[in-house]
Amino acid sequence: MPTESLWPLNVPGIAYGGDYNPEQWPLDVQLEDVELMREAGVGLLSVAIFSWAQLEPREGEFEFEWLDAVLDRLHAAGIRVALATATASPPPWLTRKHPEILPERPDGTVLNQGSRQSYAVSSPLFRDYALRMTRRMAERYREHPALALWHVDNELGCHVPHDCSDAAAVAFRRWLESRYGTIDALNTAWGTAFWSQRYDSFEEILPPRAAPTFVNPTQQLDFARYSSDEQLAHYRALRDVLREVTPHVPTTTNFMMTTANKWVDYFSWSSDMDVVANDHYLVSRDPEAHIGLAFSADLSRGVAGGAPWMLMEHSTSAVNWQPRNGAKRAGEMLRNSLSHVARGADAVMFFQWRQSAAGAEKYHSAMVPHAGRDTDVWRNTVELGRILRALAPVKGSRVRAEVALVVDYPSWWSAEAEGRPTDALDYMAEATRWYRALWRRGVAVDIVSAGTDTAGYRAVVVPTLHTVTDRDAARVAEAAHAGASVLITFLSGIVDEHDHVRLGGYPGAFRDLLGVRTEEFYPLQEDEVLTLDDGTRADLWSEKTHLEGAKSVRTWADGPLAGLPAVTRNSVGRGSAWYVATRPDEEGVAGIVDALLAEAGVSPAAAGLPEGAEAVRRYSDDGTSFLFVINHTAHDVEVSAAGHELLRGEDVAGRVTVPARESVVIHER
Amino acid sequence: MPTESLWPLNVPGIAYGGDYNPEQWPLDVQLEDVELMREAGVGLLSVAIFSWAQLEPREGEFEFEWLDAVLDRLHAAGIRVALATATASPPPWLTRKHPEILPERPDGTVLNQGSRQSYAVSSPLFRDYALRMTRRMAERYREHPALALWHVDNELGCHVPHDCSDAAAVAFRRWLESRYGTIDALNTAWGTAFWSQRYDSFEEILPPRAAPTFVNPTQQLDFARYSSDEQLAHYRALRDVLREVTPHVPTTTNFMMTTANKWVDYFSWSSDMDVVANDHYLVSRDPEAHIGLAFSADLSRGVAGGAPWMLMEHSTSAVNWQPRNGAKRAGEMLRNSLSHVARGADAVMFFQWRQSAAGAEKYHSAMVPHAGRDTDVWRNTVELGRILRALAPVKGSRVRAEVALVVDYPSWWSAEAEGRPTDALDYMAEATRWYRALWRRGVAVDIVSAGTDTAGYRAVVVPTLHTVTDRDAARVAEAAHAGASVLITFLSGIVDEHDHVRLGGYPGAFRDLLGVRTEEFYPLQEDEVLTLDDGTRADLWSEKTHLEGAKSVRTWADGPLAGLPAVTRNSVGRGSAWYVATRPDEEGVAGIVDALLAEAGVSPAAAGLPEGAEAVRRYSDDGTSFLFVINHTAHDVEVSAAGHELLRGEDVAGRVTVPARESVVIHER
Amino acid sequence: MPTESLWPLNVPGIAYGGDYNPEQWPLDVQLEDVELMREAGVGLLSVAIFSWAQLEPREGEFEFEWLDAVLDRLHAAGIRVALATATASPPPWLTRKHPEILPERPDGTVLNQGSRQSYAVSSPLFRDYALRMTRRMAERYREHPALALWHVDNELGCHVPHDCSDAAAVAFRRWLESRYGTIDALNTAWGTAFWSQRYDSFEEILPPRAAPTFVNPTQQLDFARYSSDEQLAHYRALRDVLREVTPHVPTTTNFMMTTANKWVDYFSWSSDMDVVANDHYLVSRDPEAHIGLAFSADLSRGVAGGAPWMLMEHSTSAVNWQPRNGAKRAGEMLRNSLSHVARGADAVMFFQWRQSAAGAEKYHSAMVPHAGRDTDVWRNTVELGRILRALAPVKGSRVRAEVALVVDYPSWWSAEAEGRPTDALDYMAEATRWYRALWRRGVAVDIVSAGTDTAGYRAVVVPTLHTVTDRDAARVAEAAHAGASVLITFLSGIVDEHDHVRLGGYPGAFRDLLGVRTEEFYPLQEDEVLTLDDGTRADLWSEKTHLEGAKSVRTWADGPLAGLPAVTRNSVGRGSAWYVATRPDEEGVAGIVDALLAEAGVSPAAAGLPEGAEAVRRYSDDGTSFLFVINHTAHDVEVSAAGHELLRGEDVAGRVTVPARESVVIHER
Repeated sequence: MPTESLWPLNVPGIAYGGDYNPEQWPLDVQLEDVELMREAGVGLLSVAIFSWAQLEPREGEFEFEWLDAVLDRLHAAGIRVALATATASPPPWLTRKHPEILPERPDGTVLNQGSRQSYAVSSPLFRDYALRMTRRMAERYREHPALALWHVDNELGCHVPHDCSDAAAVAFRRWLESRYGTIDALNTAWGTAFWSQRYDSFEEILPPRAAPTFVNPTQQLDFARYSSDEQLAHYRALRDVLREVTPHVPTTTNFMMTTANKWVDYFSWSSDMDVVANDHYLVSRDPEAHIGLAFSADLSRGVAGGAPWMLMEHSTSAVNWQPRNGAKRAGEMLRNSLSHVARGADAVMFFQWRQSAAGAEKYHSAMVPHAGRDTDVWRNTVELGRILRALAPVKGSRVRAEVALVVDYPSWWSAEAEGRPTDALDYMAEATRWYRALWRRGVAVDIVSAGTDTAGYRAVVVPTLHTVTDRDAARVAEAAHAGASVLITFLSGIVDEHDHVRLGGYPGAFRDLLGVRTEEFYPLQEDEVLTLDDGTRADLWSEKTHLEGAKSVRTWADGPLAGLPAVTRNSVGRGSAWYVATRPDEEGVAGIVDALLAEAGVSPAAAGLPEGAEAVRRYSDDGTSFLFVINHTAHDVEVSAAGHELLRGEDVAGRVTVPARESVVIHER
Repeated sequence: MPTESLWPLNVPGIAYGGDYNPEQWPLDVQLEDVELMREAGVGLLSVAIFSWAQLEPREGEFEFEWLDAVLDRLHAAGIRVALATATASPPPWLTRKHPEILPERPDGTVLNQGSRQSYAVSSPLFRDYALRMTRRMAERYREHPALALWHVDNELGCHVPHDCSDAAAVAFRRWLESRYGTIDALNTAWGTAFWSQRYDSFEEILPPRAAPTFVNPTQQLDFARYSSDEQLAHYRALRDVLREVTPHVPTTTNFMMTTANKWVDYFSWSSDMDVVANDHYLVSRDPEAHIGLAFSADLSRGVAGGAPWMLMEHSTSAVNWQPRNGAKRAGEMLRNSLSHVARGADAVMFFQWRQSAAGAEKYHSAMVPHAGRDTDVWRNTVELGRILRALAPVKGSRVRAEVALVVDYPSWWSAEAEGRPTDALDYMAEATRWYRALWRRGVAVDIVSAGTDTAGYRAVVVPTLHTVTDRDAARVAEAAHAGASVLITFLSGIVDEHDHVRLGGYPGAFRDLLGVRTEEFYPLQEDEVLTLDDGTRADLWSEKTHLEGAKSVRTWADGPLAGLPAVTRNSVGRGSAWYVATRPDEEGVAGIVDALLAEAGVSPAAAGLPEGAEAVRRYSDDGTSFLFVINHTAHDVEVSAAGHELLRGEDVAGRVTVPARESVVIHER
Repeated sequence: MPTESLWPLNVPGIAYGGDYNPEQWPLDVQLEDVELMREAGVGLLSVAIFSWAQLEPREGEFEFEWLDAVLDRLHAAGIRVALATATASPPPWLTRKHPEILPERPDGTVLNQGSRQSYAVSSPLFRDYALRMTRRMAERYREHPALALWHVDNELGCHVPHDCSDAAAVAFRRWLESRYGTIDALNTAWGTAFWSQRYDSFEEILPPRAAPTFVNPTQQLDFARYSSDEQLAHYRALRDVLREVTPHVPTTTNFMMTTANKWVDYFSWSSDMDVVANDHYLVSRDPEAHIGLAFSADLSRGVAGGAPWMLMEHSTSAVNWQPRNGAKRAGEMLRNSLSHVARGADAVMFFQWRQSAAGAEKYHSAMVPHAGRDTDVWRNTVELGRILRALAPVKGSRVRAEVALVVDYPSWWSAEAEGRPTDALDYMAEATRWYRALWRRGVAVDIVSAGTDTAGYRAVVVPTLHTVTDRDAARVAEAAHAGASVLITFLSGIVDEHDHVRLGGYPGAFRDLLGVRTEEFYPLQEDEVLTLDDGTRADLWSEKTHLEGAKSVRTWADGPLAGLPAVTRNSVGRGSAWYVATRPDEEGVAGIVDALLAEAGVSPAAAGLPEGAEAVRRYSDDGTSFLFVINHTAHDVEVSAAGHELLRGEDVAGRVTVPARESVVIHER
């Protein structure tokens, strides 16, 4: 139960800090660390994430003294700790003694030690060892005054999203039995009458291991669900120990909510999290990586149900795991940090405090770089501390959005599965295609799960919701009936939760809502680009669609479907339902979004900002608000605003200049 | 023994239908199926291909009642059945009980259940189970009046062309012992003096599993032969049971004779087939996919020895296993069907009757689409039924060709093996390069195996016959001596059946016939394009060739071989032998083909047709003939013809219009 | 101990010959071989490399008679033999009996027989068999008069540079224990505090097998070292037997010192070699493959410590293992051969004498081609024999160079490891970038290892010496202090021998020498090209560098670092230290090299030669020298020289013409 007023993020103001791995350094460096932390204003550190082999160097022999000293030292410096369960990677003695806990790829390749996360999350044996370690941590530090938060494991599912070991087979069967009850129900759901796949008992079932050709798609979809659930089960098991021993301390783990991390359905985890935490890293080669960052931040807020969340990791500059790891440019790290805060983060933390000299991540930037204090990186670290202290009033305020974007992990999984009409569909590229258009318009967007009650939004965008239950489809319709302008794109509503096609014409679950019927898909070839009647170019997808109530908004100007509708609109209740039956180019998407927002009456957080400047507003319970304006361009921009500018500590009114590459945060009172 | 006059294709007229998988559907849908089949005029269905797990849900427990009902229902509707052995994919209980029947990749990866065809074809244990299932089917339905044909397994070798399991090792050794008799003979044939590979007994031999570098090429070639033969052995074993129980019923299986399916030597199977059946699917991204179709159809007729054959599967529209699965365009499916019939098919069938709602192929089109009857797909299904009824008189007639194209599976295997002069050689691209030129000229082509007696043809084209026996090389020479214009392309005649180079100068087996001697190959680099003296551009290949009796037709205009011959012609007996020592561009191939056909006196089925219109003639025993003119273009074309046009049911004479995207079939009497 | 005056290359003049595999041929061909060898002037043959299965067809049963006959026949013809240990590939009976000797890939895939080199070099069992075979060879032929040299195994490490089998795990642990002594020392060196990798005993350590993500980089670096050392240990074990039985016979093995063969650190082998031997094959698609050849030859001389070396294998024309295996052009093979001799080779040998008719390398050219004697290949074989006889006086002379290029295998391994700032770095492309510029200037270059005493050179080029010990870094600095112009490129000096970053600013070990400090790397994206202030284009790499004593030579003209230094020069002692902090284009490199050579006072072997003509000089102990001028162009070139031209046997003085595609060798007396 929460016992502190700041719960679940038990630090004052916006938390600032990063992963701290003192075990990599000699004592003199650790002592210098505390000095530097004070200089930077660090208030929260993630500790002991990968310390298992240091804490339990031999089975059952624990050495906590070094960690005691670290925590005492941090506490003395007024720094609080998000303490890890230390279970993120098993020690070599464990995998050597029990190689059966190692995970396996679909082709049977064993993933060995020598790296990190070399465990099968479904292994009962591994679970026991992890629970023992977790209990030891909890019991030892239950009363430690530095303890602010529990950090379970690390980036669960990051490197081993799917394990096909024998342990996984057992766990998968157990999960299926729980889902379906009887093998007959599973046979029906999986469509095993196809290709002689009928099962006579759950014992006959395997994970989707290497096979001669396409594995049963429902089996794959369920295995993806199981894999996400099994990671969650591991989280819950460790969390339950922590709650038992330290009921007063909140628990979290660091998610990786990006357009690249496909295999954990974070929406299904949110109710288990005391606070949602996210790790985000820029895509170095993307000149608009800040839009991807905004998506990730909005998704984090969505998973947090609108509540403030923690940015648990990002980077001061380059990472080391992309093909070419460019450094962050002037002001970029500070803008990144502010963008996260603007979109709901109440913590800004980094991997990691001090850049490693050895190991696989030594070329990953940190708050203290290899080159030391006489560096831009360190100066930015100090400056960010200053900024976050200035932003303390922002803590606890919330973003409000009039537009919802529906993102659905099972649709991501199923729409990109093998044997689909086109293998070129990139689910998250479709979602971000619409998100980017909204970002460019300066419109706040809540990213929500399928099945969320969206009836209060003015506009709801539903990209490629391939897999949808009747219930979730009804929720979308309800939003339109309640007055929202709903926009649904191609390949939505096609299959139910078992990946069974909804018969009678596409887009199945949304046919009535949209007032159209598609008789056949016409996927386009790689070099095939067609034109709509307004000149929009479109590729990837077309379909033979008939109006059954809707009106045509755009028709095909060329190709085999010339004259047939490509974009439609159906009046529904107090709202409308738009259908986009192709993939328009960026200009085409912009035109449709403009029409949709105009119809819905949605306006941006700040009017008149040029492309590349980002404005977001957070609202306090006290009726005041915070306007963040972040200028990603190389030119000064102006915004109309009034209030107290927090970064520079001055009152402003009227046209406020946001210098090139800088930001303002105006407390509007 | 055949007991019906229609044998081996026991249905009247051109058979029409498809794969029927009623086990995927509830009874009401099955009842509707029969109604719709009547509407479409379906007369033959492939049933029970993947029904093993439904028919034998637990080992030794059989449930045939549902299939009885299906067959009775179809029989009542006048529909005949190509009944499968149901052995195409083992039930999960079988692979769970006996994982040793699973096949393995060369690197040892086991191919598990969950998909289809998860069996090692060489496994004696699997064979026993498959034989038991086959015998049960045969015994239960031996007297069923719907039974027209046996369909053994399905697309044998499709997904697992090569199995490297221990079972395969045993079978491969047995096959080698049978081929070579002694280990000394094998050592000589395989050239095991190279790289210390000498075997002391057959027991030491393995399949070509993962190895440090290139595996012995003769071992690989023999393993390809063995793999094809082992699939055939499986066919024979099941077929023998069927013949024993139902000697009056013909047997077949569906081949996949395309330019993509490399690992079954269908020519070596033909004498075992009561009727040859083929599956063909368009390459969606190829704007001239109809030429690939024609190649496949002519190859089917070649494997059938000129006799009519069955198109066992094609698609009404899109498939689901290509990268981007485009829908068929207006009239395309009908033209496809007619092209198959024109080239000898007496059956036009589809995968599948009703589009699945679940499973790995649910996005594959069918005769009854997801969207139901109000669709172009269904209207085409009905129209095709009408057309095929009109074409009933065509049944049993035969194509006659004056040109033979030699296709050789072992040359395909060996010419593309590792460690060759160039890894860019695509055997089938070379074969189709010449085939396409002939197709464009409207010339009928028989695709025949190496070793076929081609002495009756006016022209014989032999692309890249890399591996050739003395006997087969002599057959080619005989055709030239008998008066044919023989054209042989580079890399032909290089090695004998053991992949041993024929010494003394290339192209080895054809040096005397061609009157040339090549001292060295000069493969070209990826961006290297050279010119011949007539301006033809050529790439991929050149060689340093000397005339030894032949005359030069084209010489190199540039490059290191400038002035040396690139295309030659040798007068031989009553005919000639041309050599093309490079890969000319399409125009260059056209020029050579024109010269060859002019010399040989070969003319097209219909004169004066524009590019994209296809004319083929079938001849009846009664002296009449059927001229198929298929217009793939978007413009009407005209053809000079006289007779009864079957599709429209009208007599024609003189200039006959073939509307854009449509066809005519004129019974010339 | 050496007992012949010609030792260690026991043949008079420049040795000429190739691999001889008579076991592939019948006796009549073997008899013809000797006639042809006489015609070509062959004097040395490598015999029995892959003869194990012929010599020991069953375990413990030896059949030497056929080899006796071969050696006697060669001896009778005056041909000497580099006799192999015959252990390069185990016979099938051995791998069948002991599959535990097979090597494994990191993912556990076993590399089976059927190819070559299918053994785990660390397997004690395999070692025993190989030692027995070696001893048998040595004892049988110890007194044979044809025996000139022992040839151990073949291209050690070629196909299996890394073995991850259990045998390898044991050997790796033993190697680590020897390197580190205690597990604590290993934990420190490997930085195992990172990612919970701490080891409690050596028994817990594995080779870098498949793992969830990046494996510990020091583990990988040490595994690379171990793998090279383990191949050397195998060499030593066999060599020791040979030395014991035949102390009078020198021993070698054929290296593969090219820019492609990464995993054997040949510098660390050189002290174990009685004579260094190299295999070199042109990259067929590279129009300047002769520069790659020169690099390989200079590297061979470097590994030989400047002493003459053997070209053990090259090709008369095409190979068969590249993507497209082009034939050599007119004169190319002769120029290749002369270039090797010019750069220190005292032997020119080929794979192989007679082109195989069967097996995996039958499309690899040989001295006697498939097409026989009436071929350019054979005429070149005879001509080369004549040339090498004319070059007999060259034997034993040495190249002298004023420029050293430092190449370091551990830096190659570590700079290209995973998780680095950019994955686009190609270590050898960087080394050859500078080498090519020097080659174009006609400057002799010694390629030397890091740690070589380079104080005597006028210029020292150090490309991307990522990993460097304090001692080796000091050696580089000493060269500058002693007067050399030292040029160091980006990513040098970054980590120590344990792959630990040198803290405080890059480029770590060279910061003081270079007088610069880099605070952060700025790797460039794939399409990112920036400009220096002299117009040079640069890509791949930039870094934020500050002058700390050095002067700026080039600055950035654009990009985020505009105005900061990109190329610097620091005056050091009697010399200088240049830093190139990016990858300039070819013109930019040329400008820097010109400045460096001008400053250092380095001049070419022959002045005024046009691009594409190569001049190298060898110096005899007697004070005379040999000027090789090799004209790779299609035009005659002239060179100023005086002396006796050996190839044409005439005295020359003044302007000497080197005909297009030909060469001259002038004995300057």
